Amino acid sequence: MHEQLNFIIEILGTISFAMSGAFAAMQKRFDPFGVLIIAFVTSIGGGTVRDILLGIPVFWMHDVFICGVIFASCMLAMLVKSFEKKFRVTLFLFDSFGLGLFTIIGVQKGLSAHLHPIICLTLGTITGCFGGIIRDILLNRIPLIFRKEIYATACLVGGTVFLFAVKYLSFSYAFVQIFTIVTIVVVRTLAVKYQWEIPKFYWSNKHNTEM
Amino acid sequence: MHEQLNFIIEILGTISFAMSGAFAAMQKRFDPFGVLIIAFVTSIGGGTVRDILLGIPVFWMHDVFICGVIFASCMLAMLVKSFEKKFRVTLFLFDSFGLGLFTIIGVQKGLSAHLHPIICLTLGTITGCFGGIIRDILLNRIPLIFRKEIYATACLVGGTVFLFAVKYLSFSYAFVQIFTIVTIVVVRTLAVKYQWEIPKFYWSNKHNTEM
Amino acid sequence: MHEQLNFIIEILGTISFAMSGAFAAMQKRFDPFGVLIIAFVTSIGGGTVRDILLGIPVFWMHDVFICGVIFASCMLAMLVKSFEKKFRVTLFLFDSFGLGLFTIIGVQKGLSAHLHPIICLTLGTITGCFGGIIRDILLNRIPLIFRKEIYATACLVGGTVFLFAVKYLSFSYAFVQIFTIVTIVVVRTLAVKYQWEIPKFYWSNKHNTEM
Repeated sequence: MHEQLNFIIEILGTISFAMSGAFAAMQKRFDPFGVLIIAFVTSIGGGTVRDILLGIPVFWMHDVFICGVIFASCMLAMLVKSFEKKFRVTLFLFDSFGLGLFTIIGVQKGLSAHLHPIICLTLGTITGCFGGIIRDILLNRIPLIFRKEIYATACLVGGTVFLFAVKYLSFSYAFVQIFTIVTIVVVRTLAVKYQWEIPKFYWSNKHNTEM
Repeated sequence: MHEQLNFIIEILGTISFAMSGAFAAMQKRFDPFGVLIIAFVTSIGGGTVRDILLGIPVFWMHDVFICGVIFASCMLAMLVKSFEKKFRVTLFLFDSFGLGLFTIIGVQKGLSAHLHPIICLTLGTITGCFGGIIRDILLNRIPLIFRKEIYATACLVGGTVFLFAVKYLSFSYAFVQIFTIVTIVVVRTLAVKYQWEIPKFYWSNKHNTEM
Repeated sequence: MHEQLNFIIEILGTISFAMSGAFAAMQKRFDPFGVLIIAFVTSIGGGTVRDILLGIPVFWMHDVFICGVIFASCMLAMLVKSFEKKFRVTLFLFDSFGLGLFTIIGVQKGLSAHLHPIICLTLGTITGCFGGIIRDILLNRIPLIFRKEIYATACLVGGTVFLFAVKYLSFSYAFVQIFTIVTIVVVRTLAVKYQWEIPKFYWSNKHNTEM
């Protein structure tokens, strides 16, 4: 049952990542093929970078099912684009659950490779966030997570909770996993609801730091 | 003779990819070293991403000859930049032949790794298109293939024809390969000549889809 | 003593790369987490691309110490951002020493993998320059090294000197290394002091080269 729950969450996360990519590409007036590429990259980008860094086979290369899910999500996004506002909350929830699970998967893969907890946390953050970063690079804009949202921060908080619980507490694995995902969902929901923002740096002098 | 033909097409494709990168970089007023990097990345970017995804040695790391070809093409592009308009048609043809062959090479490498046909098609498209995508990211513009041209679509059509013919028809390998390349060249030429365009998405509401 | 010197130079280079990334991110008003990511990517980007191309384990995955150094440099950059102008010269020198050593490390890793000198030189340039290129892509601007500075050129000059000396001269290894680093530092310092610029391409016709 635990395996099945994970599988369902992973699919929901993939769907919502793919749809977020597809909507962003349609806003920029891409053609359907471009929309598909952006949806694909947003969904699998984070895991791909993680697997390349770990030097293990890239997960989607042997998983046609996930490619089919992304394709179907992309079609769905194209069909319902006028109603996008209506199911924004649903997508937000899917996306948060997906972010939570993706972070955990990244941390776990790091632990399996016997890496230091800090590196595992980095891999979790990469799995959760890099899909969106690559999407924004392809859309030629500054990645939003750097400027606007408690997104990467939710990843970091969740990953730390997960690592701590796995290492030092004796709860069952399934419980720790669910608890981490709920933490990430709650942090993100509260952040959006109460418009939390991390303070930014203000930089008045107009000068150049590159040397 | 078949091997030699492939070799010649690969060289012509590399030359035209390198020159397209060099011209684009010169238009942005890069210095000669920047022009060389962009030419290099445009030529080898697609194959590099493909080889990294497959986890096999990156093709140009052991192939100094191809690096020399790129270097020479880049020098040539710098020398003839004023006449660029004059041999635009030649470059277009080289580029289409190269695109065709690069797509086939990508599909073949996927088949050799016993991957699903859909993944092979993806690898073919990546080999053909990612060089241009990385070039456009470095030039800080939205990759053109997402918005303007029947380019990736030609890759997909050609790759599908190739896969179908290799799997289900009993023609000789050389014939299938030449037929695929001709298909891609014809699709692109017709697309440019009759200004085919894939319909794009229009998006009237000004709002933000990132969550 | 030689090992220790290398270690110190590598740390100084990492610090200055991280700080250059952090300052650039703060100028774009990123939040602290975004500043950390940019600092990290600027420091380890070049070496990461090199290791992935070589198909060897990525260096920082097993090196928590270097991650700590980057984290500390980033904190430091946040604290002293108002005084950034004051220690610009210090940072410039650290950065040049780091560039020199990073270039040498890249060339050496290529030589250990028995690659052609041209490919080794490419790997040296990638190690020295790609961190800054990825930083600029994430900040959504055209990488500065393509347009403004004798930076990649210093890498190339230094790498060539190093390769030549290692292959054909009988000096001790430590001497060659120090000589290379000094060459890179001197080339960059003279270039900045006397405002050397490589001539750029001027391109008058407004037309499109993509095909």
